[in-house]
Amino acid sequence: MDEFELIDRLVRLFDESGASLPDGVLVVPNGDDAAVVRPSSGLSTLTTDALVDGVHFALDLCSLQDAGFRSIAVNLSDLAAMGATPTGLLVSLILPPSLADCDVLEIGRGIACASARFDVPVIGGNITRTSGPTVISITACGDQRGPCGPRSGARIGDGLWVSGHPGDGAIGLRLLQSHPLIAERFPRLVSAWRRPQPRLDLIPLFHRGLVDAAIDISDGLLADLGHICKASGILAAVDKGAIPVSQDAIQAARMAGIPDLDRLVLTGGDDYQLLIAAPPSSEPFMIDAGLARIGTFEPGAGVEIVESGVRNRFVGNRGWLHRQDRDS
Amino acid sequence: MDEFELIDRLVRLFDESGASLPDGVLVVPNGDDAAVVRPSSGLSTLTTDALVDGVHFALDLCSLQDAGFRSIAVNLSDLAAMGATPTGLLVSLILPPSLADCDVLEIGRGIACASARFDVPVIGGNITRTSGPTVISITACGDQRGPCGPRSGARIGDGLWVSGHPGDGAIGLRLLQSHPLIAERFPRLVSAWRRPQPRLDLIPLFHRGLVDAAIDISDGLLADLGHICKASGILAAVDKGAIPVSQDAIQAARMAGIPDLDRLVLTGGDDYQLLIAAPPSSEPFMIDAGLARIGTFEPGAGVEIVESGVRNRFVGNRGWLHRQDRDS
Repeated sequence: MDEFELIDRLVRLFDESGASLPDGVLVVPNGDDAAVVRPSSGLSTLTTDALVDGVHFALDLCSLQDAGFRSIAVNLSDLAAMGATPTGLLVSLILPPSLADCDVLEIGRGIACASARFDVPVIGGNITRTSGPTVISITACGDQRGPCGPRSGARIGDGLWVSGHPGDGAIGLRLLQSHPLIAERFPRLVSAWRRPQPRLDLIPLFHRGLVDAAIDISDGLLADLGHICKASGILAAVDKGAIPVSQDAIQAARMAGIPDLDRLVLTGGDDYQLLIAAPPSSEPFMIDAGLARIGTFEPGAGVEIVESGVRNRFVGNRGWLHRQDRDS
Repeated sequence: MDEFELIDRLVRLFDESGASLPDGVLVVPNGDDAAVVRPSSGLSTLTTDALVDGVHFALDLCSLQDAGFRSIAVNLSDLAAMGATPTGLLVSLILPPSLADCDVLEIGRGIACASARFDVPVIGGNITRTSGPTVISITACGDQRGPCGPRSGARIGDGLWVSGHPGDGAIGLRLLQSHPLIAERFPRLVSAWRRPQPRLDLIPLFHRGLVDAAIDISDGLLADLGHICKASGILAAVDKGAIPVSQDAIQAARMAGIPDLDRLVLTGGDDYQLLIAAPPSSEPFMIDAGLARIGTFEPGAGVEIVESGVRNRFVGNRGWLHRQDRDS
């Protein structure tokens, strides 16, 4: 089929996904040069992120449908980290000529699946052919109905909270890469990497003004925490023992003989959980929402890990920790 | 420099471009997961388009700065075709490892230049490294302060209007490809391809309700007109002799011995002019705005070209015209 037919087929997939057009009403039908959304708050929140074959997904580790799903999920996660309710998706597919139409439609099915799952319509996009690897570039638009918890918002005395189980995504990927038979026994870990679930359920915390700063931990818990510390001009002390590692992750690491579970939990990335800085008054609501308190914001700069009373300083994902020298 | 430093440098370029944050005010500072815009109308218009090295630009035909500029201009053109005032830009750079930092900054300078020229701030983005060609993927957000002139809006009896000089972009490209010495003598044509000027100046026509349907002619005048006809369920009769071809284009085609000037004008693409369907009552305003009337919308379907009393039917950019057979 030619490019226009392919686009028609994709548009039909997206339209049939059943994602509703809630308050953020869509005005122009798919196919025009642009789409119009009406955020109930009057504020549109925008984010964009690209997934590249061989870098962010790999077809020996996941299906094309997974890749499509994942491309949407990671963008919605950035909206969740802003407390913004998703209103629409723009899908830009940059495809090698070798990718068959049926494969493109598989990506489309994964996107349609995420669109339905998270109830966000695809409202536009484009297809480009190149000689390079497949790129799925997504823009997600949200309705900023409440405060956004900017990276710069953390305050001294705030608690540091995390949702879910950091490390699940990175362990899932490691199992798929190196221990495929063990991976089959841990579908939840595999799914954490292949089909992450953005924490849109936490958006009400932002609406209620309970969040000072937030970020998702897609680049790794410590690296992303570092972004908050830098933007807020503050130090975060992380209580390593308080980080909720899943039983699945512990068991899988034991079975597969993965020696660096701690490292994967702290810096593995590929988790679409939220890290939140919240004032003490927010504590009961954070606990209610299932978040775990894993540290405190203090005067200073950077990220420190506290373990058995010893503080180590985080110096980046590569050389990641060094014993803190108070004299330096 | 590492990726974060490169991003910092780019963000500084964009912040220093001087593009103002007009009514579409509030923006979370560059560097957060997402940006927030406040369209005065409450409606955000979104469009996205990617430029690929070797497909939409080529470094033997334009500079990296031109590529950056062009990537912004083509997206703003899609907003202009919706009558939407630009409020912000998201920049997604997908780069081969071989592209040096200084080259990335050149692309950034072109983007900053367009951002300043058209007074639209860059409000977010991301960088990804791949093995493939350079891709500049842009999302533009606009403020939909008036009607959008959807493709489906053309009515029987509407006049067909075009801005500027169709063909300039395609001729400019042809000169650069095949007649570089002649190209130097026609900077306006070359610039029409390298640094197109989106027709944001025509947005007030939409605000005043003078436009039934509009599209830019980036895919070629006839192909894009075909999109309006299909969406509106209508026939467009184009008076070929009325299409305003620039003196530069005529002269350059003569000097370079380009035999298919007509074809480039009708189907060349790479023009960022607007094609507008407008009711008869809009006529004086269209003339005032410098548009040329090049045809009429009639009952029927598809696009027909009228030349010396003969009607030919447009059947697509490849086998583009065939003598109309009224019996078929």
